[in-house]
Amino acid sequence: MAKRIGLIGGTGPEGKGLAARFAKAGLDVVIGSRSAERGLEAAGEVGKLTNKKVRGGTNEEAARGQDIVLITVPYSAMRETLTSLAGEIGERIVVSAVVPLQFSRSRIAAIDVADGSAAEEAQLLLPRAHVVGAFQNLAAGHLLDLDHDVDGDVLVTSDHMDAMRQVMELAETIAGVRAVNAGPLANSSYVENLTALLLNINRIHKAETHLKIVGL
Amino acid sequence: MAKRIGLIGGTGPEGKGLAARFAKAGLDVVIGSRSAERGLEAAGEVGKLTNKKVRGGTNEEAARGQDIVLITVPYSAMRETLTSLAGEIGERIVVSAVVPLQFSRSRIAAIDVADGSAAEEAQLLLPRAHVVGAFQNLAAGHLLDLDHDVDGDVLVTSDHMDAMRQVMELAETIAGVRAVNAGPLANSSYVENLTALLLNINRIHKAETHLKIVGL
Repeated sequence: MAKRIGLIGGTGPEGKGLAARFAKAGLDVVIGSRSAERGLEAAGEVGKLTNKKVRGGTNEEAARGQDIVLITVPYSAMRETLTSLAGEIGERIVVSAVVPLQFSRSRIAAIDVADGSAAEEAQLLLPRAHVVGAFQNLAAGHLLDLDHDVDGDVLVTSDHMDAMRQVMELAETIAGVRAVNAGPLANSSYVENLTALLLNINRIHKAETHLKIVGL
Repeated sequence: MAKRIGLIGGTGPEGKGLAARFAKAGLDVVIGSRSAERGLEAAGEVGKLTNKKVRGGTNEEAARGQDIVLITVPYSAMRETLTSLAGEIGERIVVSAVVPLQFSRSRIAAIDVADGSAAEEAQLLLPRAHVVGAFQNLAAGHLLDLDHDVDGDVLVTSDHMDAMRQVMELAETIAGVRAVNAGPLANSSYVENLTALLLNINRIHKAETHLKIVGL
């Protein structure tokens, strides 16, 4: 079972929410940022929220020596971030929670990605890594609300079976979450697009929604 | 409340399943096909299944005089079918349940649609009609299993508010179904792609799955 989790670009609400849930589950969490100071600050917040020791620092520090490296940077920063970290990441398990989104007044749109999806692009940028798509659909607000279970599925895509299995286990350390094998990495665009759909539904209904697969 | 429902290309499992649910709910249903004979045959089957009077005939007959015209043709036949029916359909409410899919041994892929989605393409082919995207994600097997409620959400997209409302009402005539406003027609590709995701999950898990939005 993976114990050491590094979050690359983990200072946003989604990164902090996931960090809080993993820390709460007893995992060893490092929150990374481009600026070590912001990484430390976010780690302090999550540590206070969870009453756990959470480390913070640079993205390089968050990638180094972890069992699983989780990418929560905005899509616009993904290529540059992963290119600079490729050596540090090496053959590790890398989880892309990245969703290519474009916000406008009328709606939230998924951006077309030339490589199919952010997860597939991450795999091309990190050819030695074992890339897994996961955690794109969990609302940050629910993750950060530690008094309640997260009532949603995490859809997991990968071409690396062992990495997929470990990330499914990681997802299920979050109370209330069920991990669902959603097939090869090529299916990631459907999962990423789903976030655009959920965010539009959230805006229309003034809610924070998750998704569940019924019938498994 | 819409009472008369015509299904264009309604002889496949999805069309027959929807026809059966609407007939069961007391609506006046016509199943259309390119061949009047096949439309009649499907109507006979659905009539027997539901103990209701269900009409069948050509696609033209299924479009004529209905409150709502539902498109359940394969995507490959959509353009030709709608072009030939444009005059008959006029300004009616048209529901696209069409999903552009490509089946291969390893996975089920969504086809990229130049106009964004099948529903948006339908709107361009029928510029006077009030097009709504809906019913793409309901598994035919569950629709046809009339002894059980359908435990899933129908995500509804449209740029025509009154048409959307009527189609949401139509969806909720199916026992167990909740209709969810999923925003403008431009969001239809996310809903259509979701079907590709669900079908991949079905294949992996040997299941027939639906989807539910949690948190509304």
